Amino acid sequence: MESSQQMKDLAAARAKTSFPIDDMTRYIHGSNEHIKRRRELAALVANDPVFSNDNRVGLSRIEDVKRGLEMSLRLYQLKEEHKLTQEEMLICLGFIDEYLPITLHETAFIPIIYAQGSDEQAKFWGPLCEKHQIIGCYAQTELGHGSNLSELETTATLDRDMDQWVLHSESFSASKWWIGGLGAVATHALIQARLIIDGKDHGAHGFIVPIRSLKDHRPFTGVTVGDIGPKAYGGFSKIDNGYVRFNRYPIPRENMLMRFAKVTRDGKYIKPPHSKLSYGSMVLLRSQMVHGAGMILARATTIATRYTTVRRQFNVPTSLKDTTNPHLETQVINYPMVQARLFPMVAQVFAMLAAGKKMTSMYNSMLLELMQDNVSSLAEVHAISSGLKTTCSTIAATGIEDCRKLMGGHGYSYFSGLSHLWSSYVPSNTYEGDNFLLTQQSARYLLKQIKQAATNPDEVTPYSKYLLRTIDQASFRAERCAAAKPKDWLKPEIQLAAFEHRAGRFVAELAVTAMQEGTIWSDLNTECWRLCHAHSQYFLVRTSIEAISDAALHKHSIETVKVLKRLSDLFALHTIQASLGDYLEDLYLSASQCQALRQQIKTLQSELAVDMVGLGDAFDYPDFFLNSALGSYDGDAYKRLWDEAQKQPINKADTVEEFKQFIVPLLNQHGPAKL
Amino acid sequence: MESSQQMKDLAAARAKTSFPIDDMTRYIHGSNEHIKRRRELAALVANDPVFSNDNRVGLSRIEDVKRGLEMSLRLYQLKEEHKLTQEEMLICLGFIDEYLPITLHETAFIPIIYAQGSDEQAKFWGPLCEKHQIIGCYAQTELGHGSNLSELETTATLDRDMDQWVLHSESFSASKWWIGGLGAVATHALIQARLIIDGKDHGAHGFIVPIRSLKDHRPFTGVTVGDIGPKAYGGFSKIDNGYVRFNRYPIPRENMLMRFAKVTRDGKYIKPPHSKLSYGSMVLLRSQMVHGAGMILARATTIATRYTTVRRQFNVPTSLKDTTNPHLETQVINYPMVQARLFPMVAQVFAMLAAGKKMTSMYNSMLLELMQDNVSSLAEVHAISSGLKTTCSTIAATGIEDCRKLMGGHGYSYFSGLSHLWSSYVPSNTYEGDNFLLTQQSARYLLKQIKQAATNPDEVTPYSKYLLRTIDQASFRAERCAAAKPKDWLKPEIQLAAFEHRAGRFVAELAVTAMQEGTIWSDLNTECWRLCHAHSQYFLVRTSIEAISDAALHKHSIETVKVLKRLSDLFALHTIQASLGDYLEDLYLSASQCQALRQQIKTLQSELAVDMVGLGDAFDYPDFFLNSALGSYDGDAYKRLWDEAQKQPINKADTVEEFKQFIVPLLNQHGPAKL
Repeated sequence: MESSQQMKDLAAARAKTSFPIDDMTRYIHGSNEHIKRRRELAALVANDPVFSNDNRVGLSRIEDVKRGLEMSLRLYQLKEEHKLTQEEMLICLGFIDEYLPITLHETAFIPIIYAQGSDEQAKFWGPLCEKHQIIGCYAQTELGHGSNLSELETTATLDRDMDQWVLHSESFSASKWWIGGLGAVATHALIQARLIIDGKDHGAHGFIVPIRSLKDHRPFTGVTVGDIGPKAYGGFSKIDNGYVRFNRYPIPRENMLMRFAKVTRDGKYIKPPHSKLSYGSMVLLRSQMVHGAGMILARATTIATRYTTVRRQFNVPTSLKDTTNPHLETQVINYPMVQARLFPMVAQVFAMLAAGKKMTSMYNSMLLELMQDNVSSLAEVHAISSGLKTTCSTIAATGIEDCRKLMGGHGYSYFSGLSHLWSSYVPSNTYEGDNFLLTQQSARYLLKQIKQAATNPDEVTPYSKYLLRTIDQASFRAERCAAAKPKDWLKPEIQLAAFEHRAGRFVAELAVTAMQEGTIWSDLNTECWRLCHAHSQYFLVRTSIEAISDAALHKHSIETVKVLKRLSDLFALHTIQASLGDYLEDLYLSASQCQALRQQIKTLQSELAVDMVGLGDAFDYPDFFLNSALGSYDGDAYKRLWDEAQKQPINKADTVEEFKQFIVPLLNQHGPAKL
Repeated sequence: MESSQQMKDLAAARAKTSFPIDDMTRYIHGSNEHIKRRRELAALVANDPVFSNDNRVGLSRIEDVKRGLEMSLRLYQLKEEHKLTQEEMLICLGFIDEYLPITLHETAFIPIIYAQGSDEQAKFWGPLCEKHQIIGCYAQTELGHGSNLSELETTATLDRDMDQWVLHSESFSASKWWIGGLGAVATHALIQARLIIDGKDHGAHGFIVPIRSLKDHRPFTGVTVGDIGPKAYGGFSKIDNGYVRFNRYPIPRENMLMRFAKVTRDGKYIKPPHSKLSYGSMVLLRSQMVHGAGMILARATTIATRYTTVRRQFNVPTSLKDTTNPHLETQVINYPMVQARLFPMVAQVFAMLAAGKKMTSMYNSMLLELMQDNVSSLAEVHAISSGLKTTCSTIAATGIEDCRKLMGGHGYSYFSGLSHLWSSYVPSNTYEGDNFLLTQQSARYLLKQIKQAATNPDEVTPYSKYLLRTIDQASFRAERCAAAKPKDWLKPEIQLAAFEHRAGRFVAELAVTAMQEGTIWSDLNTECWRLCHAHSQYFLVRTSIEAISDAALHKHSIETVKVLKRLSDLFALHTIQASLGDYLEDLYLSASQCQALRQQIKTLQSELAVDMVGLGDAFDYPDFFLNSALGSYDGDAYKRLWDEAQKQPINKADTVEEFKQFIVPLLNQHGPAKL
């Protein structure tokens, strides 16, 4: 079959790539062995009819959840048939690309039982879970309380005589809500409830609570359970987010998770040894979200890059237009407005990947330290992971939608592939710590650091060292950017200095305000918010820069390193440009430096233009997973959109007959047409 | 029944309103008679079971379209039963709040036939359409071409012997695509095709084309027609956006729309008298979108205001916290970060409503002039409407999603009411002129005006007069903001001067760049984009300010006018703050002025706090239409979320049995649990 113009355009763009794509794939995904195994697992999912992309959308809510259950069962069968490890199964779950009714059983219920259950509990519940003879879910959020753990309304009151906890939800706002897997499938729930003994409230603790009978899957007496209904934007469609409410429902005392806090047979509450231990898993989750944000936005930019490469619109000249075929319209990706929106997002992807890698290694070091009761890095790692979670998940969610807008009208088709991506990603801005609330944690941490800088400068943590410069106020206020010409903006020290100066100023200003007589901390949350982002951006730029030399050390090709450098530069300069006022207000930047910055950004964008398609390829996302008619590897966008439409059940002849029950009376309300 | 805390909170907030709510409703919606009629029509829709909110979501794609058809039929029946005028029927269609299969028949097909058809054509087709004995759609966009009308691939070639047009789509990328109503219901389509006579291409013209037989609703031979499949984010679910492709399909010559261009029996093409006539309807549509953007965002802010008023989270002090009940947590709306996000959106609503009103009156004056062959205001009205369409639809789409984020986790429930709102609004950023492309039109226009300013200053159009100041470059560069203290920022002349200065600088800079040797216009589209928004914002601020004195003239209460002034101020100052770099870069603003600006914004926000709930009420949106468990008039958010979940079909007992086909084998893959 002859290639379409779209296929030719994408192949031509791909051929221009300046770096070896497989080398970049190794930079992103690691060893060749890992890449190979990843591809095998992807193929396993892609070739299984149960996971077909053809039957995922346009289902009723009940059909959706049924499909989710079918996929869950099939995943477990694949695990058996192919002797997959737990980790490999989770990679397959990733390629299935749906939140399934069993997702939180695997990613929350099981890990928490192992982390917070006693050895006996782990031994008892672990095998049941791993063989999914029970299915669990994690129930913290309530109808009336999300962020604020300390005000949870669900209570677990000790009945000493019966040696039982009595779970109770006094009002309906105490109902657990949003709990993935609880609506239809879960037999058990890990319930966070306020532990009460003899009228004394010991705060939220975890309990393993039987919900539905293993015999007939009906809820037990005292348990009201169900599905909370559809989510926004068609998101989370295959998962049964549910609610549960308890009416004086008894469970054995031993069902309280007892690795840390304990309650004895005689009703004595034993406190956990120290309070920081639970931070670890939060830090891990948020650190993973940094890498995750990068990989998610990578999907969106890959699709948008391919489609804007094959889409041609208006036969007008641009300085980047390929003029070999003058009768063809201009490729959309050659318009500066498209480059100015798309390319910085690709740069953001690489910055987030670099930061994600760094976070993982910081987390691992911290874990080793914690095992030796050394908590010295915990505060910094926690603060950075909170800040990065906020900044990166905001960037990724906004970015996916910006990619869709870059794709014009067809972006609004479900078959763009961006709808499902965005609608299932966007709640990440709220879960694991609301993106606005979380910023207060970074801010508090940095305020402590600036106090250290004044009093114990040696104690300032590694990523807060820039605060030392703020102490001599006169010299700090006199700091000016050293860039004299556009190319100066490529110097790492000039980039870093700008981010350090801005974040430093914000911390210093907040410190002054916070110390003023009568200041109320909660009144400062806008200031915390901008400070948190400024610090996260500094971390992203710094780790981006470090990743370039790392890549060179790890024997990536010169061409690969060169592109990484350009991406890092574009990330830094674009991020400065997006908040130019912050740098102008205290005269850190001058008008001519802004001009030079803009010029250098344009230069970087034109240098990166040849590599955009290759960068998309390097993420190694198979067509099945991208699930985008517009962003497939071969570029045959219009043909694929056409084919998707032909497959729709609504286009079967029978449907017309169904519709006629309304169409015929509608056309004939005033009698038939005289035509 | 006792009021919930949430209901008490909302009632208490409502009681604080400083202005008469019904007076504000008149400001928004006009006369008492109109408001009364609007409420009656809303009730008509709300009380009809076919339009119930309970059965709109979680349907399969086919069920969705079937519901859309059922609603269409019922709407026509209501029109008959209640003797509704066409305008009243369209108001009902608005309250139904779905794009229906007949929406474009009513809002595009019929108006275009009357506007572009000859008198005979209007006489023939008009009654058929009005009695919906035929249902039409408007087909311009193709699979391969959206924005660029001149490259449409569908052709209509004259067969002189048969006195017919032969419609043809050579490749599948020529297929008409995205056409609302075409997928299932349309019997006719208004097809835009390139008119070809004797090999000569006369460009795009409109043709009335029979698609499906009125006998059996099957497509005619030569016509391949169907539905394009689901849209992004669950949007446009009830409408059958479709495609059509023609294979040498003949239609009578008389089916070409012949009010302007004509083709005679002997195949002679007669040009339209002048080319500007078609601009009128485009200007009208875009002008209506300005008001529409305001009213859409008003829905979102009303919901977010009510929910953040009743939602309490964390018992921490803020300076705005109501301390009468110290054991209650803080109302979310009292956090500064919430106010800083929410209140400016309400201000944006009022600015867009003021601009929308102005656009309508400008359009009406222009129409009167056009009737007297006076085209003098056309260019300005066209440029402003294009710019405002871009700016306002961007503000509204972004704003709805920002409102959802303000609502925490429950915002992601379908029952927040914001999901449907956003997913059906967001394509407005692409249709009626892509928001990025459109900005070039404003920019071109302003470049012409700045040339006028230099050569024929008297000819400069009313809303471009500020460009006169740019001509004396030295004095323009020396312009500085006159604000000395926070309160100065409330002076209209200081606000306007800032917007004029910024837009003026952008136009002057673009003019210099555009005239440089070798500059390619398309390379400047980022510059056009920022310029277009700067000019639109100027227009919004100016019309906002004018609306305050108008309101005073129209005998609105002093309190109403006072709130309008605060909203107008907040809009202006927040908009400056959002682009502070633009004002700092050429030293128009100083650091202390920025500081004063921020301070004044905070003051305005605290002054407006008591009025937020009342402002939401003033939009007069009934609960049925808001369709939000979280944003209802009574504030009983949690109870309503609970009730919505109980109504879900998935929570019926039968569903469990359906699910068991997968749950039972899943739990028993490794044998039953030993528990």
